[in-house]
Amino acid sequence: MEGKEEDVRLGANKFSERQPIGTSAQTDKDYKEPPPAPLFEPGELQSWSFYRAGIAEFVATFLFLYITVLTVMGVSQSKTKCTSVGVQGIAWAFGGMIFALVYCTAGISGGHINPAVTFGLFLARKLSLTRAVFYIIMQCLGAICGAGVVKGLQGGTRYELLGGGANSVSHGYTKGDGLGAEIIGTFVLVYTVFSATDAKRNARDSHVPILAPLPIGFAVFLVHLATIPITGTGINPARSLGAAIIYNRDHAWDDQWIFWVGPFIGAALAAVYHQLIIRAIPFKARA
Amino acid sequence: MEGKEEDVRLGANKFSERQPIGTSAQTDKDYKEPPPAPLFEPGELQSWSFYRAGIAEFVATFLFLYITVLTVMGVSQSKTKCTSVGVQGIAWAFGGMIFALVYCTAGISGGHINPAVTFGLFLARKLSLTRAVFYIIMQCLGAICGAGVVKGLQGGTRYELLGGGANSVSHGYTKGDGLGAEIIGTFVLVYTVFSATDAKRNARDSHVPILAPLPIGFAVFLVHLATIPITGTGINPARSLGAAIIYNRDHAWDDQWIFWVGPFIGAALAAVYHQLIIRAIPFKARA
Amino acid sequence: MEGKEEDVRLGANKFSERQPIGTSAQTDKDYKEPPPAPLFEPGELQSWSFYRAGIAEFVATFLFLYITVLTVMGVSQSKTKCTSVGVQGIAWAFGGMIFALVYCTAGISGGHINPAVTFGLFLARKLSLTRAVFYIIMQCLGAICGAGVVKGLQGGTRYELLGGGANSVSHGYTKGDGLGAEIIGTFVLVYTVFSATDAKRNARDSHVPILAPLPIGFAVFLVHLATIPITGTGINPARSLGAAIIYNRDHAWDDQWIFWVGPFIGAALAAVYHQLIIRAIPFKARA
Amino acid sequence: MEGKEEDVRLGANKFSERQPIGTSAQTDKDYKEPPPAPLFEPGELQSWSFYRAGIAEFVATFLFLYITVLTVMGVSQSKTKCTSVGVQGIAWAFGGMIFALVYCTAGISGGHINPAVTFGLFLARKLSLTRAVFYIIMQCLGAICGAGVVKGLQGGTRYELLGGGANSVSHGYTKGDGLGAEIIGTFVLVYTVFSATDAKRNARDSHVPILAPLPIGFAVFLVHLATIPITGTGINPARSLGAAIIYNRDHAWDDQWIFWVGPFIGAALAAVYHQLIIRAIPFKARA
Repeated sequence: MEGKEEDVRLGANKFSERQPIGTSAQTDKDYKEPPPAPLFEPGELQSWSFYRAGIAEFVATFLFLYITVLTVMGVSQSKTKCTSVGVQGIAWAFGGMIFALVYCTAGISGGHINPAVTFGLFLARKLSLTRAVFYIIMQCLGAICGAGVVKGLQGGTRYELLGGGANSVSHGYTKGDGLGAEIIGTFVLVYTVFSATDAKRNARDSHVPILAPLPIGFAVFLVHLATIPITGTGINPARSLGAAIIYNRDHAWDDQWIFWVGPFIGAALAAVYHQLIIRAIPFKARA
Repeated sequence: MEGKEEDVRLGANKFSERQPIGTSAQTDKDYKEPPPAPLFEPGELQSWSFYRAGIAEFVATFLFLYITVLTVMGVSQSKTKCTSVGVQGIAWAFGGMIFALVYCTAGISGGHINPAVTFGLFLARKLSLTRAVFYIIMQCLGAICGAGVVKGLQGGTRYELLGGGANSVSHGYTKGDGLGAEIIGTFVLVYTVFSATDAKRNARDSHVPILAPLPIGFAVFLVHLATIPITGTGINPARSLGAAIIYNRDHAWDDQWIFWVGPFIGAALAAVYHQLIIRAIPFKARA
Repeated sequence: MEGKEEDVRLGANKFSERQPIGTSAQTDKDYKEPPPAPLFEPGELQSWSFYRAGIAEFVATFLFLYITVLTVMGVSQSKTKCTSVGVQGIAWAFGGMIFALVYCTAGISGGHINPAVTFGLFLARKLSLTRAVFYIIMQCLGAICGAGVVKGLQGGTRYELLGGGANSVSHGYTKGDGLGAEIIGTFVLVYTVFSATDAKRNARDSHVPILAPLPIGFAVFLVHLATIPITGTGINPARSLGAAIIYNRDHAWDDQWIFWVGPFIGAALAAVYHQLIIRAIPFKARA
Repeated sequence: MEGKEEDVRLGANKFSERQPIGTSAQTDKDYKEPPPAPLFEPGELQSWSFYRAGIAEFVATFLFLYITVLTVMGVSQSKTKCTSVGVQGIAWAFGGMIFALVYCTAGISGGHINPAVTFGLFLARKLSLTRAVFYIIMQCLGAICGAGVVKGLQGGTRYELLGGGANSVSHGYTKGDGLGAEIIGTFVLVYTVFSATDAKRNARDSHVPILAPLPIGFAVFLVHLATIPITGTGINPARSLGAAIIYNRDHAWDDQWIFWVGPFIGAALAAVYHQLIIRAIPFKARA
């Protein structure tokens, strides 16, 4: 413990790692890069923890859609926005649910609840392809069920009248604007996921991971504050797909590709940024 | 400490416990399931800490109803919602009070402040039947007093005019809708309680319990964002009973059963989900 | 470390300290009640840290009044509340400032920033009378300067037109209602301060104190949500005095006593509740 | 560990460091003031971590401007503020982004994202002049790009119509009022940065730095609550410059100096207050 502290103050390598101020610091000591996850890990399919993780992703995405779409309904049906929790309340619902659900499921499945997050972490080889595909399927199923229960509660007519919480590019913006907003928005989210769960920080200080759900939830909240007027904010393909399937109107389906292509590009850029620039992993391998 | 860290990175049992990313991880090392609490623990009744815990539950539920019902009154009496803290402010009052009170009473009584939470934890055998019944009685008494003080402050006429913060199913929704909303809403809360206070996580990392009140409070806030338009949001039978007794109008009493049956079903489902799926306790016993 | 953990799981004294669930737990091991602070501690007056603590209280209360009264002004001068941060924004300003300032000054002065908190902690003999009086004077001076700077920024006419952020009992409520609201509101705050900074919890787990500013700030936010419509919410005599002196109109002075008597009664009740019921200190002394 | 705890309770030096209550405490034990950073550190320019830190500052300031200016656009273009996230939502966007970005970049660059913070820390000799200048340039470039992308998304006409998120002194306030608001606002922010990242606290308790982004983000949120009606709130020269360059209208340029002079004075005052009053560094040197 004492040794570590000293490191942080002096810098393990004076020139390359000096921290001017820092709410934490990077030293290479007592840290080994975990090996990349294999593409297929056959043993995984025989363990209960693999299926349990999938169930946890299903339940979490179900609850995520249920609470958030119901909040959107409540705001849409109020005569003036002032008699509801407002658009800011919608942003809190999305961000707050991600905070609470990541906190609850992190120890079981890693707490993705979002195919874009799963995709980004897969690119960084943090999980196997088998697991990534299984998670994405469970997330989409959970999202469909969550939106379905909201439709059941609201009744079909009212649900459709209120827009069903489905994502589409708002009037006054082009498809390109929507795609751009989704790319940068997902970059903010997945960049926060990578930074907050960085194995290097975790190795150094075991309570970092405990706090990680808070900035991750805030990232989701912030992107909603900014891009609700443009696309309603997707940055989560399962959320967009679930709402679209239950809402099932043409104009929601027309833009659906934006809410898959955008988040996946954003997640890929965040993975590249973190692995190449921040962690400089390829350059280390050469050394 | 070092040994634990190593475990998390490698996985104590490679196939069954590998964590793709994780803001914490599950290993079975240095953890023993605490034995289930007995139904009756005679010694309990002779200890000061038992009665102190009951008093703490009473005071916490009193303060919870006082702050939240007063906030509801303030929003209801403003001419336009914009000149008050708004419906979102009501959601913050409920969630924020649970956060602060769980933080303050967790070390004294476990910080339930809600018969549904007590019921869920009793089903998981975390406390004795004696203690569960005692807590629920103290919570209901505290809630009645809290709502009563608000009525005293506001005056009886104004209190009744403004609805008294009582729960009932809103116009446009069936009793079944209300019951469903209460079941899923309480599931979100009690599922968060189980996940955040999981003995397995606590054994591993002693600062997890310190942070637990934050996701628990957020869960209450989020359920309010979503279901205030449907039932006013109960998910706490003591809160619903206290407001109903002080308000005492027929339409509040007609729906009262929903705010007991719903939360108890939701809490039971959360207990089953956590013990069977997440912790797989029955299957372990067989092994 | 390991020994402590074991204690928490088993209960150091099975019957008196069993924790059904708990986000932390109480054991008497490795904890000694600190001796009560003397009424007068002559050496204090010769140490730089004593004066530095007073300066820190002055600066913190100055910034507290500056930010909060300016926020109140901004909301009051907007044509409709919707074009401002709203009444909820005012509640955030008060609660958020207490969170940030307690975090920043806790290590220097204990982070009181409120004569009622100082009074409550003095009753529990956590600081000397000399220090308590010095803190209260510095807090009041800081509050006067903070409100004065806001008046300078806004100009005298506009400042008075907008009410100057001064506390008074709202139309439709009696003086007794206002007094009651201040008593319970301050009880919520000082009860949170005692619970969150409990020396017993600190001894057990050194990161509890780091998190304490969050529930304390939230307590202030929550009381504002509930009682802004009744008194504008004082629960801090320095804040009420500072605003009254700079605003200086009769109706603010008429109710000023409420914002001293109420908070001091509330703080005293919280001190009694914590020392007698929760910590049972007098009964322990007899044993 | 045990020894430290004991210190805190008793005070390493009874009279000079006694803590009445404290959510943390100051002892001089096991702490050495880090030496001041040299003005020029030639080796710095040859290390990858130096350039990586600059890139991280660029990306963070880019994302900061993107999310916040887009949020401002969304609020400005809504017909009534109630159909948007509101002015409070703007304050959350600024404060929340600083929280998330400081959390993510603290380990890479120290997480400044603001030339005023860099300037304040440079005055306290926490980083070299070379690094300070490099950071400020990267922050300004990032801010320009961030605002530019928002203009691209919104289209030039709409962007200019809505004010472009540029800072200027509001009608009804003098330039002096605006300058004063910027000075005190930046003081609040930089004072929080110094307190939250104090090397003395970090040496004592390694999880303090992990929590520091929360009060820092809250400080930004609170200053926005208070001063949006006066200047739109700068307290970050890169943010003001980036918005002004992309908006590029005379009235934004006329006030630009206020958003550089004000924050730099505020940051300097905070550095002086922390080093002279709180840490008393010059007096220690004499001893």
